[in-house]
Amino acid sequence: MPRYALKVEYNGAPFAGWQRQAEQPSVQGAIESALAKLEPGEHTIAAAGRTDAGVHARGQVCHCDLAKDWSPFRLSEALNHHLKPLPVAIVDAAEVAEDWHARFSALERRYLFRLVSRRAPLTLEAGQVWQVKNALALEPMQAAAQHLIGLHDFTTFRSTICQAASPVKTLDGLEIACVETDWGTEFQFRLRARSFLHNQVRSFVGTLERVGSGAWEPEDVKQALDARDRAACGPVCPPQGLYLMGVGYPDDPFDT
Amino acid sequence: MPRYALKVEYNGAPFAGWQRQAEQPSVQGAIESALAKLEPGEHTIAAAGRTDAGVHARGQVCHCDLAKDWSPFRLSEALNHHLKPLPVAIVDAAEVAEDWHARFSALERRYLFRLVSRRAPLTLEAGQVWQVKNALALEPMQAAAQHLIGLHDFTTFRSTICQAASPVKTLDGLEIACVETDWGTEFQFRLRARSFLHNQVRSFVGTLERVGSGAWEPEDVKQALDARDRAACGPVCPPQGLYLMGVGYPDDPFDT
Repeated sequence: MPRYALKVEYNGAPFAGWQRQAEQPSVQGAIESALAKLEPGEHTIAAAGRTDAGVHARGQVCHCDLAKDWSPFRLSEALNHHLKPLPVAIVDAAEVAEDWHARFSALERRYLFRLVSRRAPLTLEAGQVWQVKNALALEPMQAAAQHLIGLHDFTTFRSTICQAASPVKTLDGLEIACVETDWGTEFQFRLRARSFLHNQVRSFVGTLERVGSGAWEPEDVKQALDARDRAACGPVCPPQGLYLMGVGYPDDPFDT
Repeated sequence: MPRYALKVEYNGAPFAGWQRQAEQPSVQGAIESALAKLEPGEHTIAAAGRTDAGVHARGQVCHCDLAKDWSPFRLSEALNHHLKPLPVAIVDAAEVAEDWHARFSALERRYLFRLVSRRAPLTLEAGQVWQVKNALALEPMQAAAQHLIGLHDFTTFRSTICQAASPVKTLDGLEIACVETDWGTEFQFRLRARSFLHNQVRSFVGTLERVGSGAWEPEDVKQALDARDRAACGPVCPPQGLYLMGVGYPDDPFDT
């Protein structure tokens, strides 16, 4: 059976997350249903990142096995047709080797978190950023982020239901930029790692926001990390500012 | 009665437009209802731009008269409280002179139109940009736009139901930029004029898109303008890419 890699964009708002669940809308379920319109029967797809409820993606990657040979372009067009009107789109497709795996072949995940500081309620960005009403200082957040980069035991920053075998991970990048717009101040957190623990990004951003607001000192983040204690974490921020932006592989399957 | 200027942001998707209409949701109606929660009775507000159904605003300006003296900050907070959960927000407020008028005092309106070229359906930008599937060339659109700048009879580019006294207007600016994003190619049209005719921006953008796609030559836009004939216009594009970005006054009431 030929195997296809799919690059997927979605608005996470109407979904209970990536993962298929009984009686709850999921992105995985939506794509599997669309695949069943192309080739009847059960389909099970695997993704690089199992995003939570409300989390968005620009570059999620999953793979599927099909009986027929499909041109990647026709496959993406047919899936997009059947995905309508759900906010899920196949933005690229490629045939891959039969042992290629969207999750296990991945070397890097890249996330963006959008945090907006403004007083008035959001209208156009509602559901697509996390809003706080207080002002935030960029430099203390950047200083605090330096403590998180590298190889660490991230017990403080993972959910108690995290299923990863070990809390020891390497965070390869955590850059924070401030973008002044017509409508507010947006802080963009860009994170890179081979893999992330459950709620790790939201635990980081919720904690760093406390630093930006002045409630925590940058050094407090180092102490929280060193504590290796979930109770030392700042508040976990809400999901709607989080985007899975891309996944890195030894050879990019979409680079054709 | 003290008069207040309000700067308003909204997502136009759920509204039949700015203007109050019987049995249809409107932005004007939403704000007037919120005002009635503060001071019971009838309220009638006036806006700088009466945007159509589906058109958004970052910087619409309107004014209202109230019986009590309100601090501008408390007024915007109270209105935002009563506007929830509608996607309308008062982003600034200021007390103005009793003869100041949001519409008649305005010297300039600024609009943005967002046009995205990509194949896959939109997910995160759905309802906030106009999508075309074909590729678009920037330079021919920029060349065509030059024909529209300045003082012209814009009969070709106004709706047949336009109520303006004259089709002769001055277009002060029409700049087109191309922004390559992770998820597609976005063309941003920025327009400035003292005032616009009904459907003028959407008539411009729909026509310029035909130039970008290669169906029209830039010179065809000059011929269409010179024809002074609505039938010479290209297709009028849909409203969801259009944003009223700001309004210019002799003295910016919000610059305090």
